[in-house]
Amino acid sequence: MINFTFRNDTKIIFGKGTEEQIGTEVEKYGKKVLLHYGGGSIKKYGLYDRVLRSLKDEGLEIIELGGVRPNPVLSMVNKGIDICRREKIDFIIAVGGGSTIDSAKTIALGVPYSGDVWDFYEGRTEPEEIIPVGVVLTIPASGSESSDSAVITNEDGMYKKGFTNELLRPEFAILNPEITYTLPPYQTACGSSDMMAHVMERYFTTVSDVELTDRLCEATLKTIISNTLKVLEEPENYSARAEIMWSGTIAHNNLLDTGRIGDWASHKIEMEISGLYDIAHGAGLAIIFPAWMEYVYKKDINRFARFAVEVWNVEYDFNDVEKAAIAGIKKLKSFFKEIGLPITLKEAKIPYNSFEEMARKCTEWGAVGNFVRLETDDVIKILEIAK
Amino acid sequence: MINFTFRNDTKIIFGKGTEEQIGTEVEKYGKKVLLHYGGGSIKKYGLYDRVLRSLKDEGLEIIELGGVRPNPVLSMVNKGIDICRREKIDFIIAVGGGSTIDSAKTIALGVPYSGDVWDFYEGRTEPEEIIPVGVVLTIPASGSESSDSAVITNEDGMYKKGFTNELLRPEFAILNPEITYTLPPYQTACGSSDMMAHVMERYFTTVSDVELTDRLCEATLKTIISNTLKVLEEPENYSARAEIMWSGTIAHNNLLDTGRIGDWASHKIEMEISGLYDIAHGAGLAIIFPAWMEYVYKKDINRFARFAVEVWNVEYDFNDVEKAAIAGIKKLKSFFKEIGLPITLKEAKIPYNSFEEMARKCTEWGAVGNFVRLETDDVIKILEIAK
Repeated sequence: MINFTFRNDTKIIFGKGTEEQIGTEVEKYGKKVLLHYGGGSIKKYGLYDRVLRSLKDEGLEIIELGGVRPNPVLSMVNKGIDICRREKIDFIIAVGGGSTIDSAKTIALGVPYSGDVWDFYEGRTEPEEIIPVGVVLTIPASGSESSDSAVITNEDGMYKKGFTNELLRPEFAILNPEITYTLPPYQTACGSSDMMAHVMERYFTTVSDVELTDRLCEATLKTIISNTLKVLEEPENYSARAEIMWSGTIAHNNLLDTGRIGDWASHKIEMEISGLYDIAHGAGLAIIFPAWMEYVYKKDINRFARFAVEVWNVEYDFNDVEKAAIAGIKKLKSFFKEIGLPITLKEAKIPYNSFEEMARKCTEWGAVGNFVRLETDDVIKILEIAK
Repeated sequence: MINFTFRNDTKIIFGKGTEEQIGTEVEKYGKKVLLHYGGGSIKKYGLYDRVLRSLKDEGLEIIELGGVRPNPVLSMVNKGIDICRREKIDFIIAVGGGSTIDSAKTIALGVPYSGDVWDFYEGRTEPEEIIPVGVVLTIPASGSESSDSAVITNEDGMYKKGFTNELLRPEFAILNPEITYTLPPYQTACGSSDMMAHVMERYFTTVSDVELTDRLCEATLKTIISNTLKVLEEPENYSARAEIMWSGTIAHNNLLDTGRIGDWASHKIEMEISGLYDIAHGAGLAIIFPAWMEYVYKKDINRFARFAVEVWNVEYDFNDVEKAAIAGIKKLKSFFKEIGLPITLKEAKIPYNSFEEMARKCTEWGAVGNFVRLETDDVIKILEIAK
């Protein structure tokens, strides 16, 4: 186990009807709020009305900015920054999934910063302050509701980049599993793939003696797996939706990487795909993660065997550990297939002609991944496996 | 799963040599600190010197109050409150285990309060503010380093009481597993019993559909069990000490009861024993918890069977679930015995003549426990089982 510092001060407000608490939470921070959201689904099912009513009951002044799309873009962020400055916004509320939350976080970073907010994503400088952000989560997936990171696509060159900083943790996150009843099966599955990837990125580490976090990772993965199958059968199963929703937060609130170093190559490779093509992040991960596993598992066959046995109930083969290791990867692929996700680039209709471009962009700041360091050629080979 | 709010903002600073960061952490809060600790052990192994040097390097003024004893008492707390007021203390540092931390927390509560700090423990009023507290943990056990609670004994009537409030979470907790190398085996075992009890109090719930937290509880218990055996064999095994130390925090930072209602009867009964007799809290729990289990397991045999199978690797008997349930309780008792703890009142030399007095005090505010509500007579019966 390596030394670590861990603090996550996002207040989680979890359960039925909790969105009605938003007004009382927000009014602690000021009087004027930016309400940031995506498409029309929050209006269709009454969530928008309930949030608005709660805010108005506290006498808050609301400026709206809707229209965030999957793979949120820098131009929308800059629009939000302009509005916040002009309107002297005190607090930003994101009602949505990871895209809306990441857009809100990046707006919040940009408002007090005199330069271009993309500077942070390019690693040119570190932020000193942020406008406080609160979340009403509608899609459990990204973990962004309590994470210290955000991902934005710069349309100028189609660069999709992540940025991590403790300031990015929202002040509060409201999680009502009922809100997720209407999520379509494909989006539900993409969410589960995303949160599983967050755990697996941390699970595959070269740091030894991390028993507690290994076990917590396995516990979280097993919960996501069993409950994803349940919610796809019964979309209005409150308990199963609740397990998924809480697992999505735990998967990415940094508890699961205390004392260890995660890999994150699969995320970086996937970001090139969904930065260039219109594919959901979770679907991209369902394609890339197993391909990554096939490419790297020989680095630590025992860890992959443990993954197979502890997460997928594969029977351990005392005479052929590699057999168990491979069986675990197969189980993961079968699971993604079973829940309706693509597991090849072909199934996702991603053409094969940009492998070099994606691999080059992915490694432009150096090799990626920590479990195995991947150079440009390695990334191309993983994309070949993913065909 | 029931609705919940969860926030734990204690900053965890974990690993080798981390106590040397204390000066830079504390100077953010002010200039004058109370250094609160127990006996001489922190001086014997150099910890005291390292902490003092780090504080002095930041130019902090230090007032000392040592001499906290196990089962910390109200008279020491009042002494601390007087010192803090007189010296205008900005920050309180607890260097020690749960007793020292709880004493520091209670001093911190009392300083800005005009009445008697015991009022909070008697439920007469709620605190509005607190002096910030930081911790250098020397005994992983109580979880008090990031918990929202404290336990104090009022010598006037020998009442031992707990108090819970979000204000009680320390600002930071420094956890260096190396510091625990010199803990005697008995104290190590008591610590493990205490943290296991924190998990088990949460595990035995009547709330259904709490899969993620069930699994996280099981993961934590298994880690404590395997690593306690390791550290008793090899006291200077860093990895095992680290697993124990981090597990002790996770066991009691409120993550494991998100969405569920814990029991806490065993803790309440044990507090009567260690309030009246000189026995370590962890040893008292090793006696009471199995006795409580024997008394209540029929309320939910399946849950006890799950505990047996998932935590203790008991083979599930499809034709006789109760057999598995009972086997789990037996495994717990054997484990406590194996690590050198008493599992009967007799072994701990606790006389049998105060059962009624303890049971009466324990239930003076009403029945205790949530898994099963226990009246005075039930508590007496549990004490009889524990004989």
